Amino acid sequence: MPVKNAMTADFLRSAYGGESMAHMRYLTWAEDAEKKEMPNIGRLFRAVSYAEQVHAFNHFRELGQQTGGATVTAGAEFGMGSVAENLQWAIDGEVHEVEQMYPVYFQVAQCQQESGAQRSFHYALEAEKIHVTMFKAAQDAAKAGKDLPTKDYYVCPVCGFTGEGHMEDQCPVCKVKKELFKVFSA
Amino acid sequence: MPVKNAMTADFLRSAYGGESMAHMRYLTWAEDAEKKEMPNIGRLFRAVSYAEQVHAFNHFRELGQQTGGATVTAGAEFGMGSVAENLQWAIDGEVHEVEQMYPVYFQVAQCQQESGAQRSFHYALEAEKIHVTMFKAAQDAAKAGKDLPTKDYYVCPVCGFTGEGHMEDQCPVCKVKKELFKVFSA
Ligand SMILES: [Fe+2]
Ligand SMILES: [Fe+2]
Ligand SMILES: [Fe+2]
Ligand SMILES: [Fe+2]
Ligand SMILES: [Fe+2]
Ligand SMILES: [Fe+2]
Repeated sequence: MPVKNAMTADFLRSAYGGESMAHMRYLTWAEDAEKKEMPNIGRLFRAVSYAEQVHAFNHFRELGQQTGGATVTAGAEFGMGSVAENLQWAIDGEVHEVEQMYPVYFQVAQCQQESGAQRSFHYALEAEKIHVTMFKAAQDAAKAGKDLPTKDYYVCPVCGFTGEGHMEDQCPVCKVKKELFKVFSA
Repeated sequence: MPVKNAMTADFLRSAYGGESMAHMRYLTWAEDAEKKEMPNIGRLFRAVSYAEQVHAFNHFRELGQQTGGATVTAGAEFGMGSVAENLQWAIDGEVHEVEQMYPVYFQVAQCQQESGAQRSFHYALEAEKIHVTMFKAAQDAAKAGKDLPTKDYYVCPVCGFTGEGHMEDQCPVCKVKKELFKVFSA
């Protein structure tokens, strides 16, 4: 069901803006990590960037008939520093989504009985929790002057769930089969 | 030179937001055109999406030391309709950038003597003019129920200049050599 209520629609647009900018800065930081010979941190940024694309697509589609030009207000993080600094900004953005933004957006969608937006916000929230953990591990490595260990990352194209190493049989969040996962192989 | 003035910095952040969202919606519309068996219009959307990524990267880098979290206000277009409708929203967004946004941002950067931001806005403005023309040709085809003719697209990774068919020896906007162009081949 496409969205009907103005407040939920505003939050979908805002979340779309935030996810689009996150997707973009992770691509920038991926390129930077690769240049600095940290290909595994670079690949993590690429995988997470794709997860944010999945979230952005979902929010965009849920907007349904709310078409045309709009002014979007959204949070973003900026900066091109060391790999560890870039990861700190990445963590700051993800923590904001996990602790503030998506819980609030989810509550509003629930109270406005917007089931499609609720699902879209829920999918994003679950993935961002994982992103926080992954970026913290990457930052620990970077602070020690090391790259992450070499491993595959995979992303669910339906909900943006992001995994590493051994692939589960189905997405733990949306239950899609692993054959559909997008793999970022080492 | 990274940016020093608050107004130019605000416009860089806003342009970064706008380009990130444009990059994202063109990926969505590319996928949609491909599903509807219009692979050439799909490829045009992918090429232009990459050009917007170049613009977003440039604006992001010009922000320099203006790091950390910020609230970004930016324009975007929404909707998932027919290929011709999606192209109309694409045209609306590009026309806004060409006639309103980038000329204003460029003037402000000039008056604040922000040479880096000036270059970044100039590069974007020149590419958006071409995007308007390309999307209008694509919409003419889509309205006649046809795909575009099969041809290669190429994008300058420095300024986002977007070309089709025969490749020039160097970028007409920033003079980079054609060997660096990113090609979207048929
Ligand atoms: Fe996300
Ligand atoms: Fe995330
Ligand atoms: Fe999933
Ligand atoms: Fe652009
Ligand atoms: Fe454009
Ligand atoms: Fe160029």
